Amino acid sequence: MDNFIFKVPTAIYFGKGQLDRLGMVTAEYGKKALLVYGGGSIKRNGIYERVIQLLQEEGVSYLELPGVDPNPRIDTVRKGVRICKEHGIDVVLPIGGGSSIDCAKVIAAGACYDGDAWELVLDGRKIKKALPVVTVLTLAATGSEMDPTAVISNLETNDKLGVKSEHMLPKASILDPTYTETVNAWHTACGTADIISHTLENYFSQKEGFMQDRMAEALLKTCIEFGVKAVKDPHDFTARANLMWAGSWAINGFLKLGKEVVWSVHPMEHELSAYYDVTHGAGLAILTPHWMRHVLSDATVGKFKTYGVNVWNVSPDMDEWEAARLAIDKTAEYFKAMGLPSHLEEIGIGEENFGIMAQKAASRLHGAYVDLTSEQVEQIFKDAL
Amino acid sequence: MDNFIFKVPTAIYFGKGQLDRLGMVTAEYGKKALLVYGGGSIKRNGIYERVIQLLQEEGVSYLELPGVDPNPRIDTVRKGVRICKEHGIDVVLPIGGGSSIDCAKVIAAGACYDGDAWELVLDGRKIKKALPVVTVLTLAATGSEMDPTAVISNLETNDKLGVKSEHMLPKASILDPTYTETVNAWHTACGTADIISHTLENYFSQKEGFMQDRMAEALLKTCIEFGVKAVKDPHDFTARANLMWAGSWAINGFLKLGKEVVWSVHPMEHELSAYYDVTHGAGLAILTPHWMRHVLSDATVGKFKTYGVNVWNVSPDMDEWEAARLAIDKTAEYFKAMGLPSHLEEIGIGEENFGIMAQKAASRLHGAYVDLTSEQVEQIFKDAL
Repeated sequence: MDNFIFKVPTAIYFGKGQLDRLGMVTAEYGKKALLVYGGGSIKRNGIYERVIQLLQEEGVSYLELPGVDPNPRIDTVRKGVRICKEHGIDVVLPIGGGSSIDCAKVIAAGACYDGDAWELVLDGRKIKKALPVVTVLTLAATGSEMDPTAVISNLETNDKLGVKSEHMLPKASILDPTYTETVNAWHTACGTADIISHTLENYFSQKEGFMQDRMAEALLKTCIEFGVKAVKDPHDFTARANLMWAGSWAINGFLKLGKEVVWSVHPMEHELSAYYDVTHGAGLAILTPHWMRHVLSDATVGKFKTYGVNVWNVSPDMDEWEAARLAIDKTAEYFKAMGLPSHLEEIGIGEENFGIMAQKAASRLHGAYVDLTSEQVEQIFKDAL
Repeated sequence: MDNFIFKVPTAIYFGKGQLDRLGMVTAEYGKKALLVYGGGSIKRNGIYERVIQLLQEEGVSYLELPGVDPNPRIDTVRKGVRICKEHGIDVVLPIGGGSSIDCAKVIAAGACYDGDAWELVLDGRKIKKALPVVTVLTLAATGSEMDPTAVISNLETNDKLGVKSEHMLPKASILDPTYTETVNAWHTACGTADIISHTLENYFSQKEGFMQDRMAEALLKTCIEFGVKAVKDPHDFTARANLMWAGSWAINGFLKLGKEVVWSVHPMEHELSAYYDVTHGAGLAILTPHWMRHVLSDATVGKFKTYGVNVWNVSPDMDEWEAARLAIDKTAEYFKAMGLPSHLEEIGIGEENFGIMAQKAASRLHGAYVDLTSEQVEQIFKDAL
């Protein structure tokens, strides 16, 4: 096991009715909040109204930044930073999924920085402090509620970049699974695919970690148990709760401690999102099984069999290759069972940009579970057609 | 899943050479430390000398409280509190296993309290603040390095009580598995049995938690993979590292989130320790399989089969009762394979006190996985003879 530091001080308030704590928790960090949210869903499901009421009860005043896009933009961040600086905001309060939370994190950092916020996205080391962030999560997917990372897009430069700083780690996050019951089947499936993919990215790494890998298997089993259930019955609280908590742990750093992890499928999907309007989780669901088939080899078959046995209940007595292939087939079938596509053509993507997309993706795969050339990545895209 | 709060801000510095950070980490909390440790082992394995050097390099002065007993006593705590108050100690620095850490936690709380420290053990709510605690762990077992609990004995009143307060949660813990390589086979086995038992206590609960139970299985598999290995080859770093990290997670609260957990075997073992000089882990190893056999019933056989299939690779096709019994047998065999006893007679315990011990234990079992009468507990003791 390699050396590591584990420090995840985010306080998690999990369960039905935990939103009631929001006023008190926010007031610990200040008396003036900036609410950051996306479209109108938080107004439809009642959460917005309740948030306002809770803040008022604790005497926390607030300003609002609505309209955060699914891929949050630096322009929105800048708008938020301006509000924070002009109005002396004490605490940033995103309500929503990963987009609102990511946007809020960089706003919080930008509010404590003299230059332009995009400079912080380009170089996270420039983040020396940030306003406290308290999140209210309404979608189980990105894990942003318990990690120090944000992904921000810049339409002028065509960039979509991740930035990481411990200063952006939320001070507290409120996870009430009931607020995810209004998430529709498609986004529930996409969110679950994202959680599964985060876990697989940590699991399939050059360096193994025994305890870490068993923990990853535990999260995968959790997603498999409850993903389809949540898609079929949106009000299945146990399913919503398990997915929500699994989402946080898939990517809060715990699974990769003591390992070296370079992601494989996310960089490829990133190019799909960059060139086409693909929902992230759907792209991951399509690419993952094709990536698995491509990297299956004498060197990796053992790990894929372990994956099959420990996650998919494949018999340990089965031949190694047979078990590995069965595990991959079961992965593909599961995404399908959640209503997700299996091929790029299903979502209207052709091979016109595969060359350049593969080049860009391959440049970020050095050190991944299996090092892939751009030709190999292109082949995976073709296999996925 | 029940509501919960997860807040474990302890910073963990894990791996070879992480001790080097001790000076810096300690200096964050003050310039005057109290070293708390047990017997001479930290002087034999070189850790003491290095700690002194690191503190001096950072200009941290220190006083010492050596001689903490395996079951740390309130008298030692009082001595530590006196030193803290008289000398204006800023930070308490235990070096060792659970005993030194537990002792240090209550010293840290007592240093900020006007009355006698035993009052705090009797009622943890009286702990309103504590000096910061930074731990250096040298034994994988109790998990005290990442939890808010301490167990203290009072020889005058014949009490051994646990106390919990978030103020006692260590600010930082240094976990260098190489320092556990000098732990002998017996204490390695006992420590591993303790970790396994903590995990089982969380696993076998009236209320199930899907993700939590899969995580518990992951920790159990980790202990099973590496316990015997560490006993046989004390310098197996991977084994030492996995056991050390598993030890922290078995009891830092994570496994019981969203469940109601009342422990079963620990209260029974507690009575063994109270009446005889039993090493805690050895007592747990003896009692656990007998407890399992006793509580196996139509109501619990399903869970025991799940335990067998997911932890001990029992075939899912096997008959439920057969699978459950096989899982229990494997549990017993594993403790034996680590060199631990299977019967109380092996460690010189007869049935003379079973009646009163059973009565005391049963009084603390309400709400446990299976509610047991004192007669039933007595029967388990007899089965374990």
